[in-house]
Amino acid sequence: MSKAGADEGGAGGCGDSAKQLEAKDEKGGTLLSKLPAGPGWTKVSCPCCFSERVEPLVVVKLGGKVGPETKRWLIKMIGAPQKDGGAALLAHPGEDASGDIIVVSAPRCTLLRAAEELGLCKTYRSGDMEAFSYNDRDNFKDSDNMEAFLTLAERQYIVKYELDGLRAQKDLRIPGLPESRMLQKRDNIWQKLSSAGVVVDTFPLHNRKKLKDLGEAWYSGNQLAQPLGGWKYNTLLLHLHAVLFIQIAVKILHYMHLSLLEGTMIHNRWLRRCAHTRYLCLTYLDSVNDYFGSAVAFYFSFLDFYTWSLLTPAILGLTISYFSGEAQKEMVDSVSGSKVIINDDDSGPMISGHMLQAMFSMIWSTVFMELWKRRSSSLSYRWGTMNLAERFAEPRPNFHGDLGVNPVTGRMEPLFPEWKRDLRMVLVSVPVVGLFLGLVVLGMMCFYWGEAQVKQLHKDWDSLLSQALLYIPSVLHIVYTNMLGNVYRNVAQSLTEYENHREESAFENHLTAKILVFTFFNNFAVLFHIAFFKQDVPLLRKRLASLLIVSQLVNQVTEVVIPFLVDRFISAPHRTESEDDPQEDKFRNQRTLPVFPGLFAEYIELLVQFGYLSLFSCVYPLTAVLLLINNITEIRSDAYKICNLFRKPFSPPVANMGVWQVAFEVLSFVSVISNCWLLLLSPRLQELCREGGLTSTNVLLLAVLGEHVLILIKFIMAALIPDEPDWIRKKREQMEYTSMQALKEQKLQPEVS
Amino acid sequence: MSKAGADEGGAGGCGDSAKQLEAKDEKGGTLLSKLPAGPGWTKVSCPCCFSERVEPLVVVKLGGKVGPETKRWLIKMIGAPQKDGGAALLAHPGEDASGDIIVVSAPRCTLLRAAEELGLCKTYRSGDMEAFSYNDRDNFKDSDNMEAFLTLAERQYIVKYELDGLRAQKDLRIPGLPESRMLQKRDNIWQKLSSAGVVVDTFPLHNRKKLKDLGEAWYSGNQLAQPLGGWKYNTLLLHLHAVLFIQIAVKILHYMHLSLLEGTMIHNRWLRRCAHTRYLCLTYLDSVNDYFGSAVAFYFSFLDFYTWSLLTPAILGLTISYFSGEAQKEMVDSVSGSKVIINDDDSGPMISGHMLQAMFSMIWSTVFMELWKRRSSSLSYRWGTMNLAERFAEPRPNFHGDLGVNPVTGRMEPLFPEWKRDLRMVLVSVPVVGLFLGLVVLGMMCFYWGEAQVKQLHKDWDSLLSQALLYIPSVLHIVYTNMLGNVYRNVAQSLTEYENHREESAFENHLTAKILVFTFFNNFAVLFHIAFFKQDVPLLRKRLASLLIVSQLVNQVTEVVIPFLVDRFISAPHRTESEDDPQEDKFRNQRTLPVFPGLFAEYIELLVQFGYLSLFSCVYPLTAVLLLINNITEIRSDAYKICNLFRKPFSPPVANMGVWQVAFEVLSFVSVISNCWLLLLSPRLQELCREGGLTSTNVLLLAVLGEHVLILIKFIMAALIPDEPDWIRKKREQMEYTSMQALKEQKLQPEVS
Repeated sequence: MSKAGADEGGAGGCGDSAKQLEAKDEKGGTLLSKLPAGPGWTKVSCPCCFSERVEPLVVVKLGGKVGPETKRWLIKMIGAPQKDGGAALLAHPGEDASGDIIVVSAPRCTLLRAAEELGLCKTYRSGDMEAFSYNDRDNFKDSDNMEAFLTLAERQYIVKYELDGLRAQKDLRIPGLPESRMLQKRDNIWQKLSSAGVVVDTFPLHNRKKLKDLGEAWYSGNQLAQPLGGWKYNTLLLHLHAVLFIQIAVKILHYMHLSLLEGTMIHNRWLRRCAHTRYLCLTYLDSVNDYFGSAVAFYFSFLDFYTWSLLTPAILGLTISYFSGEAQKEMVDSVSGSKVIINDDDSGPMISGHMLQAMFSMIWSTVFMELWKRRSSSLSYRWGTMNLAERFAEPRPNFHGDLGVNPVTGRMEPLFPEWKRDLRMVLVSVPVVGLFLGLVVLGMMCFYWGEAQVKQLHKDWDSLLSQALLYIPSVLHIVYTNMLGNVYRNVAQSLTEYENHREESAFENHLTAKILVFTFFNNFAVLFHIAFFKQDVPLLRKRLASLLIVSQLVNQVTEVVIPFLVDRFISAPHRTESEDDPQEDKFRNQRTLPVFPGLFAEYIELLVQFGYLSLFSCVYPLTAVLLLINNITEIRSDAYKICNLFRKPFSPPVANMGVWQVAFEVLSFVSVISNCWLLLLSPRLQELCREGGLTSTNVLLLAVLGEHVLILIKFIMAALIPDEPDWIRKKREQMEYTSMQALKEQKLQPEVS
Repeated sequence: MSKAGADEGGAGGCGDSAKQLEAKDEKGGTLLSKLPAGPGWTKVSCPCCFSERVEPLVVVKLGGKVGPETKRWLIKMIGAPQKDGGAALLAHPGEDASGDIIVVSAPRCTLLRAAEELGLCKTYRSGDMEAFSYNDRDNFKDSDNMEAFLTLAERQYIVKYELDGLRAQKDLRIPGLPESRMLQKRDNIWQKLSSAGVVVDTFPLHNRKKLKDLGEAWYSGNQLAQPLGGWKYNTLLLHLHAVLFIQIAVKILHYMHLSLLEGTMIHNRWLRRCAHTRYLCLTYLDSVNDYFGSAVAFYFSFLDFYTWSLLTPAILGLTISYFSGEAQKEMVDSVSGSKVIINDDDSGPMISGHMLQAMFSMIWSTVFMELWKRRSSSLSYRWGTMNLAERFAEPRPNFHGDLGVNPVTGRMEPLFPEWKRDLRMVLVSVPVVGLFLGLVVLGMMCFYWGEAQVKQLHKDWDSLLSQALLYIPSVLHIVYTNMLGNVYRNVAQSLTEYENHREESAFENHLTAKILVFTFFNNFAVLFHIAFFKQDVPLLRKRLASLLIVSQLVNQVTEVVIPFLVDRFISAPHRTESEDDPQEDKFRNQRTLPVFPGLFAEYIELLVQFGYLSLFSCVYPLTAVLLLINNITEIRSDAYKICNLFRKPFSPPVANMGVWQVAFEVLSFVSVISNCWLLLLSPRLQELCREGGLTSTNVLLLAVLGEHVLILIKFIMAALIPDEPDWIRKKREQMEYTSMQALKEQKLQPEVS
């Protein structure tokens, strides 16, 4: 704050400066859009934040009945410095004081301080990423140009973070609101305003120019040359694989002291090429991170990584299907639904393919997850989210507890004992979730029972009516499952709210985990039932094939085609924009888009896919091929969807995929058990064993032994592949070392000064 | 270094000051012993280190042919400041310049600097433990009195650490040594001197007074009142258990908003009592930590904790044995070795005991390990070793590699790439260890084959000669196993040396892990063979009982009685000490004691015990009782042994049990599998299933299902019980927070100053 002087008069871009924006827009290309002359932005409190151009970041939509005095008070709160209980942001009242929107932006100092509070890492003058410190801002690259220093997503998230963090400093009445809406001391203002209907909506603004650039690179490129998120990434992954193998080979050569010189030369040449492709690929993901934030960027990185990793199982699956001559039969089988080929099902050399596939999918899933972890940690370093300080920041707005001194940070804030939360989880959440899982099983059992009843009825009556009755159990089951799912979602939300997590990310993770378990159970209960109780491999194969094809088609249609059609033919006509429209109307128009539903649906789709692949793929080798085809379209459709069909989401900086990472890992463990079991079920293997004179008990014993050995191998593999690349580990240790040194130095300071 | 002035003349206690020691000895009680007048200690280089009394810490024994010039040079090196390539310690030449010992001590500054380098935590003025910082030394409690600030073990380890770290600053010739022993630049001096035979031995000195106090509290107290390491600990553990239950109960009450006031009152009263007993117990372990260092103290803490945890399984085992009326039979069976009672073996209610024991031992082993982890982290906080900075310190002396700049600390030191080490482990260590394990199995197979052959022979011949032959396979097997064990120990040492670990602790852990796997395999191969291949439960029971009784007797005899007899009747007569002996002779006498063999044998004994208990106890319920009896004597005998029969060991500060922790945890996992299998083997269960109409395949399936569920439960339990107590977590987070803050502050510093 050394520069914060006495000059309080410097205003953020006022009415006339907004005009200047127009001229600069062409040059900079980073500005969102011009703002018309008018009452202008609120004043900034320190001169270093003064800037001639102000970028509108977030729009606050007010309720229809909000009076001008309330709006004026709100604008004052948003613009007031933090020591006066304000948010220290910039507010603009839109066209006039009675309009129903407030446009919000953030001055430099607020952005920088929040970046420190969130624990973002930025490029230091040494070129390394370091935790940003406001006091040391001058040593960070680009810290004078906010649009280069913080990504658009970060700037918008910071605005939301500051608005959400607004707390009343004393009891006060909001002008224009009844007495009953009094603010108590330390009440969360934004929550109170939302519940009072003053604030209807807070949403970040799209930047049309950036969005167009991003879209062009992402989904509307040449369809042949860039089938994925970018041809660059394709070549990158191939290169990376090749480089990995060559590196290992070179290292062995090196180690054996053989042809040292040549080895290193090849190595270096490849490393250069690798660095180049890595650069190309990362620039593409960087722009996603820049525009949509790290949560979305992590999803797309994972989707890319996963899709390209599917190449190997797809090739293996194709080969197995082709050589076993089963490909055609499978296709026919799955499409026609006939069950005629059960008897000669596992004949011929199929058995080896079966086992090969099971073994392969086990190793593949382990290696895939370990490599993703490494990639994930590089990405979080690159995006400066490896060192987030959420634990040390203010608790989330909904967190409540007795006011006290946080023992760690020494700040005054609500405290809630850990054991109380644990108790709530164990005594309330776990039983309720268990109850719902029980309801799913109950539904499934009723469905089977009903189906048997109806079939019996149909056999007895054999009329058109009874044929229609045949569909009733399925319909009822679908309705039941959907209702249960909706009820469960609300219950999960309340349960997680009741658990009272301190950090936003902990809240998200617990909520996601609850819904995830349920959805997963819902999806796989039937398949597990077929595999482990009915022990009917052909039925499993048929079910898997139809699920893969039908559910993916349905997904693509519901996810993309319907929103697209709705947007094009129902919403869009009301939203025709012309260049002459006032800027406010353009802002308002963005609100007509539906809210982005979050990444849950996208992730769960991938997880269910991954489940099909790793758990059951050995019975249907074409799984990987179908998934690969699906994902290649999925990348483009997801990209199109998030760019065009929804409002821009707020996205907090995240360091990894959170609970999804765990879910994928758990699945890859369960896959070992499932594959061993499916191998055991294979009729061909059982026949072979009978020929070999083994009793079924001995076969089972062998399978159990094999399973334990495989799990052991999986553990060892997971332990041997380090979770972060060597260079990240070094950077992290370096950070730890410097902060240890700093602690010692700092203790000395009071003595010296 | 603000106090380090120009006055270089202040000497450490010189000849005459040594005389003053005598007088102070009575008062202080912490001094080791007086030193006679003589040439005196080397001079200290800074006045703050000057002290009137110097405590001899370590004795360096020189080779017989070392000339006085070499000794003088060595004393100069030890005394020289670190910037001149010396160790900055205090050296005393013993009786005269030609004697074969050098007595070494350490001045205050060297001790403090090394404490910072090692990353020791000490009590800050706030009362919390904080990483010690030399610059901030005045804010730490007792930092002017080294004997209160650092434990004896720490001071002695620091001396060794400094001596081991001596490196030649330039090429130089050691006076009195041939040209071939030239020191190259950066050569490790101490290693070179040892290989040249100049330094024969370096060992820390016992402090007779402290040792006597410790021994009195430890093993020679009232045998009835203090059967364990102290009656205090006994009551502590009972209290802790009670407190735990009451705490949980009170929390539930509290949570239910029932009888809030009474609940809290009971709670508080118990908490006070608990704090008191915790204090009593910890003072006893503290003095072990003080005298022998944290490695030994952790062993004894674990032994105490383990022994008292055995109470519950012992009571359960006794109850089961009593009620099943099997206790007598078991005893008779195991002693007489007769196999007559196989048929009615599992009759009556034994089956429920069998299952109860299996389930219980699974849950017990999990809870035990989790509670130990919590205790271990409290201990490491208490002893200031939670934050060791070995990674950032100098590498271990034997570490070699290309000289380069450490990317983390920025210091010049040998570097060795991680991947090369991994490669060496995977390509060399793992196959060699596998080979030796194969040799163990081969030996066992040969033994069984030989036994069968000899029995056949005996049956055919039935002579005295053939009866003698019966013993040959056993004898050969024992000889083979012992030889293999000795060879393996050397191989493991070389392999670990070849792997070239940077940190001493990593070296120790890898070496221990190698020997551990082998020893464990050696011990359990026979039992596993009986349980899983022969599937002979009665034989397993017999074997287990005899192993438990015989091996423990043998252990106690070889570990304690023999060293005691040797010491008393062979060594001691040469070591009659009288008060009039010169101090040097007393120092020399300590060298006649054998070197402390390390804790490996002690730990492996516990591990094997734990293995018997958790893996197989369900077939022999009295295991826990026998182990409890053994351990109660073990604590005393181990304590007596380490105090009286061996030289005092150097003991680096450690934060936990290292690889032993992992070994115990792995074992407790394997125990689930083993218990499920043993349950399955129980004839009573199989009979029950036959009655229930289940095929053996179905029973097996149920067992596998049960095993998976139990493992899942174990995982969840391990995840639910936090690894460190709440208060430790808070302290740790506080440390992280302050060091994060410090990093930000420090970056600012260059700007300000």
